[in-house]
Order: sequence, then structure tokens, then C-alpha cells
Amino acid sequence: MNSKPSGQVSLKERRRNDYRHFLSYRTRWSDNDQYSHINNSVYYHLFDSIVNAYLISHCEISPQTSSSIGLVVSSHCQFFSPLSFPEVLDLGLRVNHLGKSSVTYEVGIFREGSTEPAAVGGYTHVFVDAVSRKTSQIGEQTREGLQRLFVPSESGPGSKL
Amino acid sequence: MNSKPSGQVSLKERRRNDYRHFLSYRTRWSDNDQYSHINNSVYYHLFDSIVNAYLISHCEISPQTSSSIGLVVSSHCQFFSPLSFPEVLDLGLRVNHLGKSSVTYEVGIFREGSTEPAAVGGYTHVFVDAVSRKTSQIGEQTREGLQRLFVPSESGPGSKL
Amino acid sequence: MNSKPSGQVSLKERRRNDYRHFLSYRTRWSDNDQYSHINNSVYYHLFDSIVNAYLISHCEISPQTSSSIGLVVSSHCQFFSPLSFPEVLDLGLRVNHLGKSSVTYEVGIFREGSTEPAAVGGYTHVFVDAVSRKTSQIGEQTREGLQRLFVPSESGPGSKL
Amino acid sequence: MNSKPSGQVSLKERRRNDYRHFLSYRTRWSDNDQYSHINNSVYYHLFDSIVNAYLISHCEISPQTSSSIGLVVSSHCQFFSPLSFPEVLDLGLRVNHLGKSSVTYEVGIFREGSTEPAAVGGYTHVFVDAVSRKTSQIGEQTREGLQRLFVPSESGPGSKL
Repeated sequence: MNSKPSGQVSLKERRRNDYRHFLSYRTRWSDNDQYSHINNSVYYHLFDSIVNAYLISHCEISPQTSSSIGLVVSSHCQFFSPLSFPEVLDLGLRVNHLGKSSVTYEVGIFREGSTEPAAVGGYTHVFVDAVSRKTSQIGEQTREGLQRLFVPSESGPGSKL
Repeated sequence: MNSKPSGQVSLKERRRNDYRHFLSYRTRWSDNDQYSHINNSVYYHLFDSIVNAYLISHCEISPQTSSSIGLVVSSHCQFFSPLSFPEVLDLGLRVNHLGKSSVTYEVGIFREGSTEPAAVGGYTHVFVDAVSRKTSQIGEQTREGLQRLFVPSESGPGSKL
Repeated sequence: MNSKPSGQVSLKERRRNDYRHFLSYRTRWSDNDQYSHINNSVYYHLFDSIVNAYLISHCEISPQTSSSIGLVVSSHCQFFSPLSFPEVLDLGLRVNHLGKSSVTYEVGIFREGSTEPAAVGGYTHVFVDAVSRKTSQIGEQTREGLQRLFVPSESGPGSKL
Repeated sequence: MNSKPSGQVSLKERRRNDYRHFLSYRTRWSDNDQYSHINNSVYYHLFDSIVNAYLISHCEISPQTSSSIGLVVSSHCQFFSPLSFPEVLDLGLRVNHLGKSSVTYEVGIFREGSTEPAAVGGYTHVFVDAVSRKTSQIGEQTREGLQRLFVPSESGPGSKL
């Protein structure tokens, strides 16, 4: 895995103010695996949860009736420190790339009260027609909602000067 | 399934004040199955979560270090109305039976703001030695925590007097 | 929980030949909770899997296109001995009750090679219209598939009088 | 996401003979999300399952008693075509990197009978002391098992010069 998917910035350096939207999730007993910490797969369930909750609440997406839905084409996560049930987790969401038919989300997962992320990851949604599943453009209302989460890349010209 | 496991009282008639301890859980995207409602199995994950969170926070149980742990020997649930991501759920917990080495919990699951339960179920924990897994007595501090959730059965003679 | 929901027969006495249809499921790492055994909730995921696989393969049910779908109204399970990843589990399925619009399934879960069940449980499906979600009659092809799994109650001589 | 994490080879070009160890997994009802396909998070549960089953069966790792355990530090997946319950999936496992204390696995997920992967991903385990959780060297027996899955990078002619 490339440890610096957003240009020159290490994901471990993320802080809460690098994200634009937050939700808190209570962990569940079965999130812990037999090593007594939140299993790595569970973080992806949480990514899915904050992303889809945002799409439903702020982007006019209705999973059952929208003509266009987002399908995940790639995902990744880096794990910096363990978390464990029954901790409450704060999830921060941002958009790193917003194209005509795709959007790349990043999620930072923070232990309640912590300034440093325990894990950072995300995924890319390609929007498709809900029936044909062919690529479709992101609708205007959805785009407006996603645009509010957009944070430009830190890796641009001059960023190291 | 017997629809009246607590004597003469239907579980559908439960209300919030029939429970002694509450926690709210945000639902997750993957809780919905392809019928677009919270899958029946997920309710049991939630039972496990409020029960074990209470044991850890109020009953001096530490899953990794306690000499005695609770194992589920039977569980059940009745489903009255569908729930769906991204709803937030209020879980109410009570203890219906507290024996020397076993405890029977009941959990009511309420949609945020609703007075009637969407589902009611629960399970029986038998406490066992963490290493030998042989039945053990419930420790005194654990018992005190569980006793605070105990609600006597409504089904006996004179119970309404 | 009533330990004898099918008349006079204890579920612990079930053997493989009490079931009419079998599938094997490989357990998953995250099925184990931090007590290093298959979590109680996972059994319900397995019930759902063998029941719905049978409905799709043998009962002409298509979750996405059928006019009628089965919703769970109550479920239960008894746990007799622990199971643990990476064991392979044999699931046996039978139908205990088949009504006009509802069906009650029972599932026995056996460790590979074991004659005695590690757990026995099940649930009741009520069939509803896929759109209106109002109770509907079980279709003829579905009924024929379910009928092949039906095992009459064992509840002793005279139980039908 | 970099689509070519192993040098010049696109993960989409993987075929079954690129992998060294296989297990088949039956999908479960709850693996499908409300878009009626296997949810992206479920693939990570499957990665965990084939990796840990291999560690237990072929590498002398016992999750409950080994002095050293593998913790996931980063994971990724690319999704090429949808899968859906009740399909049976063939998982192929290989090791792309084997260091002193870390190992990088890759898993290809194939629909039964298909030559092209539906998804390819994986993760990096860092081995740590089971108690202190400090980095430890991979034990000799574990290394021998992992070595058998190792496939050298394909990164083009001359890449090793």
C-alpha cells in the first residue's frame, strides 16, 4: 500500500479539522474479534455507514428509489492504534476527489476525545444507473452535497515551499 | 414460539418504562439486508452489545481478565415492526430472572421517539469459569449490578395489587 | 425459554436424520467473538442463509423479483456446546409448521462429523407482498418446496385429539 | 488507489494459477446489502478467514495460545464485478512480501467456475507479541508455511537487476 495516497501527506497526520462532517458510532460486542480489539473489517462497515448516511441525509439519495446509486470500486484502510468495544468512535468524513461519475471519500476514525486518528481509510464510489448498473453522471443535488465535503489535495505546486 | 414468555404479559405491550437501562445505537449500512430493513440477526448483535456494555460498565466484568464470564445458552426475539438504516435505535435493558449462576435479560428495541417497541427479545447467560468454562456462581459485584435491572414478573397472583 | 417447543421432544435430542436438507458452511474469522467461540448472533445469520438458499434454489423465490417475500416475525436458539473458527459446520433444515401464509423452520447446527447438535433454533416467516408488505398466501411452488421439508410434530400419542 | 500495487501487473489480470492456496466459502444471506450484491466490507471478512485458517492449519499459529500473533496494519481491495448470495466463492491466497516481522497477503476472489477474479485485495500483517503487542519476528514454523505461498513480484524484465 502506498502510505501517502494524497500526495505528500501521511494519513497518520490527519486531525479532526481535516474532516468536514462527523458522526459518532457506538461499537458493538461482535466488533471485537478474538484478539479483543475491533476487527479490521469492521472499519469498512463504518465507512459505509457514514458515507451512506450522508448521501441519504444531505445528497438526496434514497437507496430504494434513486435512479442512480454509488457502487464501491476500490477501498483501503491504514490502522494506527487498536480500538475496542465498548468504546464510542467519532468518524470524520471528507471528499478527496469529485469527478463526473465518481467520488473518493476519506474517513478518519477517532477514539472519543482523541485528536489523533486510530485509523484512516476510504473508498471510491462510481455512480451507476440503479437498474442497468451502467455508469451514470452524479446528479446535481448529490454533487452539491458532496462538494461541501471536498478538501483539495495538499500536494499541489508550491505546497512544499 | 410462546408469545407470552413472561407469564400473562405480551412482549408487544412493553413500553419504555418497563426497562431500567438505556443506550442508543446508530444503525449501520450493512444492518439492512436486501429487503431494505434491519436484518433479524442484527437484533441479537444489539442485545449482546447493551448487555456486555452494562456488564463492563456497571458489573465489574472485564472480558479479558475476569475469572468468570457469561455464555449465552438460549436466545429469542419477536419482531413487531421493521426498522431501517440510518435510523437511531434506543435499546432498553431489564433482568427478568437472576439465579445463582444464570441471568435472563430482556431487551426492548425502540425507534428513536417511538413509545412502542419494534422488537423485544433477550437471552440467558450462564456464568462460567473463564478458563475451565465450568458453571460458576455470579460474583457479588456483578450480582449487585444485575439486581438493579431486575423487574419482577407480572404474571403471579396478586401481582397487580 | 421453553426447552421443548415441539411438544415433548427436547431440541438437544435432535440428530441429523431429524432434518431433511443439509448445507455446509465454513466459519469465518470474525464469527468468533473475544471469548474465542462462534458468537451467538452468528447462528441466526446461518439460519437465514440455509433458509433463503433453499427458498431460492428449491421454492422459486427470487428476493429481487418475487411478488411475495418471507419476513421473520420471531426467532429462537438454544446453544448446547461451543463451536469455533475455522470449523466447518453442517446445517440441517426442516419445517415444523406450514400454514397458509407462514412457515416455521428449524435448523440444527452440527460440527463436521458430530452426530449431536451444537445448537438448534429457527424462526417463523410470514409471507408478505413484496411491495405493500401485507400478509399474502404462500405461492403454490413455494409451498411444494417447503412441504418436502415438513416433519410432523413428535408430540406423543393422542396429541392431535 | 494505485491500480498496480505489484509493479507492472494489474490486479484485474490475476488468474487462478497466480495463487498458491484455495478455500471455498459459501456466501450468507446477510452478505448481500440492500443493493442485492455482496457488500464491499464482506470481502475483508473473507480475507481474514482464508489468511487465519491458513495460519492455523499450516503455520502453527494458535490464536489463543501462540506467543506471537499477526495484526493488520493496512488493507485494500479492488472490486471488478458484483457477486451475490447464494453464490459459492473460491478464494485464492498468495504472499507478495515476507519480511522479518511482517507479511503481505493477496487474495483473489473468484465466482465458482470463473477464471477471472471478481475482486482482488489483501492486507499486511505485522507480527507482535501476544501480550505486550510489541513487534516480534515471525517464528520459524510460521515462516516456512508463509514461504510456500510466496510469489515473487512480476514487475517486468530486469526488475531485479
